[in-house]
Amino acid sequence: MTKWLDEPSLDEDVVVSTRVRIARNLDKYKFPSLLSINESDELTDEVLVKMKEVLDSNYQFFRTRDLSDREQLVYVEKHLISPGLIQEKNKSSFLLRNDEKASIMINEEDHIRVQTLFPGSNLEKAWELCSNIDDRLEENLKYAYDKDLGYLTSCPTNVGTGLRASVMLHLPCITMTNNMNSLIEGLGSIGITVRGLYGEGSKALGNLYQISNQTTLGQSEEEIIEKLNKVVQQIINKERNTRKHLKEYKLLELEDKVYRSSGILRYARILTSKEATVHLSNIRLGLEMEILETGDFKDVIKLMMDIQPANIQIRYDKDMNEQERDTARANVIREYISNMEG
Amino acid sequence: MTKWLDEPSLDEDVVVSTRVRIARNLDKYKFPSLLSINESDELTDEVLVKMKEVLDSNYQFFRTRDLSDREQLVYVEKHLISPGLIQEKNKSSFLLRNDEKASIMINEEDHIRVQTLFPGSNLEKAWELCSNIDDRLEENLKYAYDKDLGYLTSCPTNVGTGLRASVMLHLPCITMTNNMNSLIEGLGSIGITVRGLYGEGSKALGNLYQISNQTTLGQSEEEIIEKLNKVVQQIINKERNTRKHLKEYKLLELEDKVYRSSGILRYARILTSKEATVHLSNIRLGLEMEILETGDFKDVIKLMMDIQPANIQIRYDKDMNEQERDTARANVIREYISNMEG
Repeated sequence: MTKWLDEPSLDEDVVVSTRVRIARNLDKYKFPSLLSINESDELTDEVLVKMKEVLDSNYQFFRTRDLSDREQLVYVEKHLISPGLIQEKNKSSFLLRNDEKASIMINEEDHIRVQTLFPGSNLEKAWELCSNIDDRLEENLKYAYDKDLGYLTSCPTNVGTGLRASVMLHLPCITMTNNMNSLIEGLGSIGITVRGLYGEGSKALGNLYQISNQTTLGQSEEEIIEKLNKVVQQIINKERNTRKHLKEYKLLELEDKVYRSSGILRYARILTSKEATVHLSNIRLGLEMEILETGDFKDVIKLMMDIQPANIQIRYDKDMNEQERDTARANVIREYISNMEG
Repeated sequence: MTKWLDEPSLDEDVVVSTRVRIARNLDKYKFPSLLSINESDELTDEVLVKMKEVLDSNYQFFRTRDLSDREQLVYVEKHLISPGLIQEKNKSSFLLRNDEKASIMINEEDHIRVQTLFPGSNLEKAWELCSNIDDRLEENLKYAYDKDLGYLTSCPTNVGTGLRASVMLHLPCITMTNNMNSLIEGLGSIGITVRGLYGEGSKALGNLYQISNQTTLGQSEEEIIEKLNKVVQQIINKERNTRKHLKEYKLLELEDKVYRSSGILRYARILTSKEATVHLSNIRLGLEMEILETGDFKDVIKLMMDIQPANIQIRYDKDMNEQERDTARANVIREYISNMEG
């Protein structure tokens, strides 16, 4: 379940993935938080009926409450649905495109959220696909729209375009040189938000940062995408320059960091997902800086998702307590990484 | 230069080494700290002349000040001479037996200190050799001796027998279960001192503890040795029982600790001597508990000495700053340990 990774990706030495999502609401229903379960189901049925032809057999439909807690979390850990969707599991559902590059979430914070997901730096492609799906939906559904404000959304921060584009960046060297905080401040002042690996409120584990637009109002979709793209390119350059500098002056320390993580991942018998993520980030750094010579960026991304708690349990097809998961995780990683050099 | 390890050793799953030393002073000289350099040299010459026949060609003589600082430290790191001897390097000298099991230090804190050193638990042998050398010296030298007090020494804590017997123990499991402090307190109350790896004031790095007699007065040499031997056997049993218990209830955690250290030693590019000692202690633990199946306790002891700062520089035959040593140390260990299982 990582089909979305099968796509050529740009700048993959710094950019992990690109995500675009739009928020839409049907004008004849209250916002999701105000709907009863019955009303939510009604809305879901209506959407499904009206979109049947549009979506055809490329999509699979899941009612969240029909999935086990573990299955729900697997989709979140794979970034295919948002954590918010399963917080409202009795009302929510989603359609997942077979190539996993698009999902349509129903009754998350808004009635409809379309998400597209691509590996590496792929803002144009992700926006193109998202916009395309949006157009086809809009032909069949009547959205809540205000001619002055734009699309109306449950939370005022999404009003307007309802668009959030975000790019996940791996910034170990900007972080290592203590330049991340000033970068975050600087980005904040031009309307760009920085978050950690698993969305809002999560800490930047493994030097992974999600960079996204703060404002959805007063700019066209294309302007938002173009601006974010520019900012991302600047951050990519800054990270690459810092790497070049560190490679010249701190190569030994970098090698030590990379190889230590390699040693721990190859030998540890107990690994929490947090610790594993930190070491996998260092393995990625080793590949990015050509300290490690074999290995694939996408393998590291895949492994980072595969070792999350629900994914570990799905792999072994059983409920596990924390210690069992930590042991299973160490086994999965040991097996996986023994095929990598270093 | 680890010939003293070539000897069968008992209880080597817990006991690293056994050391016995006696302190003696010549009655016609002031104590070493009160001697001028000339007077120290006079005393040294007298001792050498009078002991010439006794010591024969089995011993090599070193005047401390003729050795480079690095060479002096190598002997300390190998436990062949005491740190105190090189603190008075202009006055001191030593005779080292070719098999390294005995050294005679001149003008350390006392005029003469005889040390014998054996691997594993070997108190009887170490005392026998030390006593034997002492007897032969006493036939030729007139010692400061009081019929009520016994041998007179520079520091009152050594008056009487002048004997200090010490056993170096590896106690990872007593330490891990937080029972070390109460053990140290208990031993203190029966006149047994506990110190770290490199003698007085040094912290117990790598779970290595030196257990020795506190008092030298009011007991015969044989009583001191016998009492220490009994105490050591009790500690060995306590450590072994704790290991058995942990192996039953915490095997996974132990394996994780051992294999992580193995991974770090195999992969790190920078290692301080402190960190390396901690990980080597865990490798030793792995051998002791049969988590690692191949490898020799004596190899680990040897490696722990080989990676000390002066030994590293002697190996590469050049002065190195701290970073160079840490890198060289990681290289030495990586090479060495890649031949061990695990």
